[in-house]
Amino acid sequence: MKSKISLITLGVDDLNASRQFYEKLGFKLAVEENLDSVVFFELSTSGMLFGLFPKEKLAEDSQVPNDGAGFPGFSLAHNVSSPEEVDKVLEEAVAAGATLAKAGEKVFWGGYSGYFKDPSGFLWEVAHNPFMDLT
Amino acid sequence: MKSKISLITLGVDDLNASRQFYEKLGFKLAVEENLDSVVFFELSTSGMLFGLFPKEKLAEDSQVPNDGAGFPGFSLAHNVSSPEEVDKVLEEAVAAGATLAKAGEKVFWGGYSGYFKDPSGFLWEVAHNPFMDLT
Repeated sequence: MKSKISLITLGVDDLNASRQFYEKLGFKLAVEENLDSVVFFELSTSGMLFGLFPKEKLAEDSQVPNDGAGFPGFSLAHNVSSPEEVDKVLEEAVAAGATLAKAGEKVFWGGYSGYFKDPSGFLWEVAHNPFMDLT
Repeated sequence: MKSKISLITLGVDDLNASRQFYEKLGFKLAVEENLDSVVFFELSTSGMLFGLFPKEKLAEDSQVPNDGAGFPGFSLAHNVSSPEEVDKVLEEAVAAGATLAKAGEKVFWGGYSGYFKDPSGFLWEVAHNPFMDLT
């Protein structure tokens, strides 16, 4: 695993309200499409994006129940170059003491991803995105 | 406010255990001192750090009770060049719809910082750090 965060995604209550809030603060959209589903802002920290996603959807995507206890409400993403590398990083994380939340699988947006929880329960998505290079 | 995250800090349950976990995964320390208090890892995303801090201490620092409800358990930081700019960004955030969690003040580590909560309750620290340039 490289010392890298590719994306931080906040699971928000109201996607439009949150997008408008961050736009008012000066954040610039990285992607103009599908703003009703997911929002990506550019960051001056190169190679990294800041995302907003409805909290319920993030819970569903990571297969961690949004019950206020085990679900941290946001995720860090670590992007890699292939589905095989996703599986490898998930294995490494589990070997280091992580808990597998979701094994790597093909996902609705066309990539391949899985999730692990760190020792405090924070969620990391390990992803291969063939459309956007965040490795 | 620039479109920038300077630092993401996870409020962890066991600082040593979490440091060891991330070191096993390949994260490199940015600072070698005071590892019993706070841990900073380098990221390949330039100008940004990844921090670990005991959850209770993060709650205390942000003046948000660690009651499992209103406390997200991590913070994003936006660093600026002066204490005056901290106050200005906090004002801007409140004007855009944020809630002030802690007004700007001199803090124990020698800098000046305050916190706001975004519309979903996520915590942002706005900080001036005279020792480490993360602006």
